Amino acid sequence: MTRILVPVQLRWSDLDAYSHVNNVEMFRLFEEARIEAFWRHPDAERDGSPTAVLDAGPGAATTTLVARQEIEYLVALPYRRRPVIVELWLGRLGGASVDVCYLLRDDDEPEPTVYARAQATLVLVDATTGAPRRINEVERAAWQPYVEDPIAFRRRR
Amino acid sequence: MTRILVPVQLRWSDLDAYSHVNNVEMFRLFEEARIEAFWRHPDAERDGSPTAVLDAGPGAATTTLVARQEIEYLVALPYRRRPVIVELWLGRLGGASVDVCYLLRDDDEPEPTVYARAQATLVLVDATTGAPRRINEVERAAWQPYVEDPIAFRRRR
Amino acid sequence: MTRILVPVQLRWSDLDAYSHVNNVEMFRLFEEARIEAFWRHPDAERDGSPTAVLDAGPGAATTTLVARQEIEYLVALPYRRRPVIVELWLGRLGGASVDVCYLLRDDDEPEPTVYARAQATLVLVDATTGAPRRINEVERAAWQPYVEDPIAFRRRR
Amino acid sequence: MTRILVPVQLRWSDLDAYSHVNNVEMFRLFEEARIEAFWRHPDAERDGSPTAVLDAGPGAATTTLVARQEIEYLVALPYRRRPVIVELWLGRLGGASVDVCYLLRDDDEPEPTVYARAQATLVLVDATTGAPRRINEVERAAWQPYVEDPIAFRRRR
Repeated sequence: MTRILVPVQLRWSDLDAYSHVNNVEMFRLFEEARIEAFWRHPDAERDGSPTAVLDAGPGAATTTLVARQEIEYLVALPYRRRPVIVELWLGRLGGASVDVCYLLRDDDEPEPTVYARAQATLVLVDATTGAPRRINEVERAAWQPYVEDPIAFRRRR
Repeated sequence: MTRILVPVQLRWSDLDAYSHVNNVEMFRLFEEARIEAFWRHPDAERDGSPTAVLDAGPGAATTTLVARQEIEYLVALPYRRRPVIVELWLGRLGGASVDVCYLLRDDDEPEPTVYARAQATLVLVDATTGAPRRINEVERAAWQPYVEDPIAFRRRR
Repeated sequence: MTRILVPVQLRWSDLDAYSHVNNVEMFRLFEEARIEAFWRHPDAERDGSPTAVLDAGPGAATTTLVARQEIEYLVALPYRRRPVIVELWLGRLGGASVDVCYLLRDDDEPEPTVYARAQATLVLVDATTGAPRRINEVERAAWQPYVEDPIAFRRRR
Repeated sequence: MTRILVPVQLRWSDLDAYSHVNNVEMFRLFEEARIEAFWRHPDAERDGSPTAVLDAGPGAATTTLVARQEIEYLVALPYRRRPVIVELWLGRLGGASVDVCYLLRDDDEPEPTVYARAQATLVLVDATTGAPRRINEVERAAWQPYVEDPIAFRRRR
């Protein structure tokens, strides 16, 4: 079981008037973690991010499109300066799309609190044509080790 | 089939660098529509909002807690000054929780573009004790007419 | 004294953990009001917005660049469903830039509460070249009636 | 000249449709840096943050209120994964308020690009009474070394 761990810094503005991280903002934290984990950036190699091979971002050849998302909130997340951990893996590695699985948790051992579990389906899109494009061999090789079972959601009806 | 239609104004800041409404921001639009539809506010009676009976908001007796959310994105939503329409109904009216169903769409007749469909499970929580509290008779009477089938998501695996 | 009055809808997410509209979000409200007041949009003529003549927005010929901003916060703004009013005028109408003045207030007569006063310097930029471009005659004619004294800030040191 | 340097991580959502960090979001970056620099938090001592002595945050004895802000934007800030640097000092240390000065810059030597310079007046407020409260001796001792000339804004009229 190989997973990607991305520390993400909360912002004061992630809190809503109930003084917890707002339920919508949790998708922001996942968005940040996903970009850190998968988008190529100048410091990725030095930082040891073997999955950060996707040429996305402003002006890049690929854009990513979110096709669906699902989340279950487990524990309210209070404010903290210490980063939270987003634990990522792939629940499916398709032809032009992937299912990214997330746990939002802290880093206490041995039983970290899990605040939310979520899943997003991402489609890789050619930035010029706007059409889905196939995951290439570099990407597939980089991401294959992180494929395992998707999240088993418990509150679906 | 009785549904609640809430016009919601986009903000320029809802766009991301791809020049479309960001996928996370769509949950913000739903949040706004849900508050407009269900929270009691001084102008609700005048405005003819029979479902706006929930005593939530800062300092109120009830807070709402989102237990799960799910969304399917259908069409990219470009910027516009004209409000978008959030169409709401209840997919389930439980003892202390409801499933709110959403369509994000425009108002063109006869076939409005639907940008996304989504669903959220809300739990009513006593603001003092933090425990779930039962939906009361006033709320149940106000919301019952809007109960129908929940959204049939098509991209679940 | 001719001023532009733009009602702006708060969002629940404008609140921070102190349960008031966050100080940074007030700039968002001004941004929204400025766009409504000055950007050309399909409904502007119908809506009677004579100042909405600027061809900005995604894909347009002009972008606007904010060169400076200044704000004084006067009264904490609590949550409300009723829109707040942004009152706008121009403190200066230059060759390629304008100073936009704002009051954030409610609409109670005769003495509305003023929550903040602010000013922003906007530069009109050619979207292709990235260089400032002169305010054209249509824009100047539309905006000239709204020029008056700029805001007299009281807390500068 | 002693200054506080706070690295701040951009988020993808800080970009607007012009593909640069939005002018309003820069105040968010300053807000984050200010909290990191001045609010007491469990890890501050370990992290060597001698100025992080203010007991603020949710549930704390003190809240901070922003009384005014001013900013000049110098260079558009494009997206980057590498943190930007917020350089902070105090332009004034008053009885119950401070003027916080900011430079938003990168960390290239010897001449880092400065994207914006700004200043905010913060008032310390007793969370119970809502009244301003005096800066105490611990705070004053911690912050005094960082007092120097305030920012000389160049675009005021």
